[in-house]
Amino acid sequence: MAQVQVAVHPAEVNPAKLPGKRVVMFDVLRASSTIVTALAAGARGIVPVVEVDEARAQAKAYGPGTLLGGERGAKRIPGFDLGNSPLEYVGQVVRDRIIVMTTTNGTKALARGAGAREILVGCLLNAPSLADYLAASPGGDILLICAGVRGRIALEDILGAGCVVSLLERRGMEIEGDGAFLAAQVYFMYRDDLAAAMGTFEHGRRLLELGFGEDIAYCAQKGPLAVLPRLEGGIIRVGDGHVW
Amino acid sequence: MAQVQVAVHPAEVNPAKLPGKRVVMFDVLRASSTIVTALAAGARGIVPVVEVDEARAQAKAYGPGTLLGGERGAKRIPGFDLGNSPLEYVGQVVRDRIIVMTTTNGTKALARGAGAREILVGCLLNAPSLADYLAASPGGDILLICAGVRGRIALEDILGAGCVVSLLERRGMEIEGDGAFLAAQVYFMYRDDLAAAMGTFEHGRRLLELGFGEDIAYCAQKGPLAVLPRLEGGIIRVGDGHVW
Repeated sequence: MAQVQVAVHPAEVNPAKLPGKRVVMFDVLRASSTIVTALAAGARGIVPVVEVDEARAQAKAYGPGTLLGGERGAKRIPGFDLGNSPLEYVGQVVRDRIIVMTTTNGTKALARGAGAREILVGCLLNAPSLADYLAASPGGDILLICAGVRGRIALEDILGAGCVVSLLERRGMEIEGDGAFLAAQVYFMYRDDLAAAMGTFEHGRRLLELGFGEDIAYCAQKGPLAVLPRLEGGIIRVGDGHVW
Repeated sequence: MAQVQVAVHPAEVNPAKLPGKRVVMFDVLRASSTIVTALAAGARGIVPVVEVDEARAQAKAYGPGTLLGGERGAKRIPGFDLGNSPLEYVGQVVRDRIIVMTTTNGTKALARGAGAREILVGCLLNAPSLADYLAASPGGDILLICAGVRGRIALEDILGAGCVVSLLERRGMEIEGDGAFLAAQVYFMYRDDLAAAMGTFEHGRRLLELGFGEDIAYCAQKGPLAVLPRLEGGIIRVGDGHVW
């Protein structure tokens, strides 16, 4: 049976051990939640890039109709079509569109997964679908990577990963290491009121100060979106089946 | 009032923010506990080095009577006088001696503190003394660094840091960030039986397999040693007063 590990900080990821692994990136507030929401709303794909200049260049390369999304300091980047609030990514804006996206933490954390057998995007919104998929897929250890915020851990990412760990544990998968154990504990500690908990964490408090309280309430929902975002060939699309 | 932060992984430490900070390194199983024990038993000082060859060279430089201590893969290094079990570091062996020491995680984590105003070594054994000292010292934010194991987090280090966080919080110090909040939660979760908890964590289980169960029981004791190990000029000695 496949093992489930959690990197509570991206620096825990050992690139040499990625081949063969299935990786899920968690940036619950807000990149992962925004990506899941955009794909659920019919976006054709999300192109994650690390730098702002690179985002502009990629949007040009993808051609007219491509949207630019993302944040720096939690705020929309000047000249971009969209920020990093999932509530902006509604069907009438994003349907059938390619979105080139750069965020402070999430897009960097995705790059950490390079070399893995499969790279998925996870958050609370799609946690049950993700667990269904991972439990049903054959083989390959699972590594859930918590993106964190500006080089430090973020409890909401550990919470999101812990939700998936707890769902996989119930299906008999083996939880390996202190990170996965800790993430499951954090989830159990806060599961009765995820939104309230997220509002007390460091990054949640900052988003509340900036007026993004609705984002927190939205991102704290467990399971409403049955979307499996998969990064392949530089673009994140809806994965509708197993990759092998 | 000074703030208290915790880096649950050494990669969270931002070297640019170290000047002015008071840093404490936690490698509870076992480097920190061994250093505290050796100093309590009368060792003159511990010279922490990262590489085995460097340890041999330093021991030669310090001259006859210098002891070599440390581990690789939790086991004593060939030709070394001592391993990394605190129970080996008794008075009749270490009194008045300089010990050059290299361990897989602890000595590397100490190097992460370079540039801080003060670098101390912490574990459960000296947690209350450490909290007394930090609460009584004037100014300077406090950063507790969890060493982890081979690049991954270790719950026993988070537990040790959390013990000090909880003691400082009671004295009215401000807990800053998700790391410190999480560490305090982990400590509260396990404080009623620290030894049993440590035996269930990843690194504790490995030490049990290797026959180091007594080390775990010893390192899980909260507060028996009133020792304040301070790294200064490349050597860790007993700090008997404030440094500024």
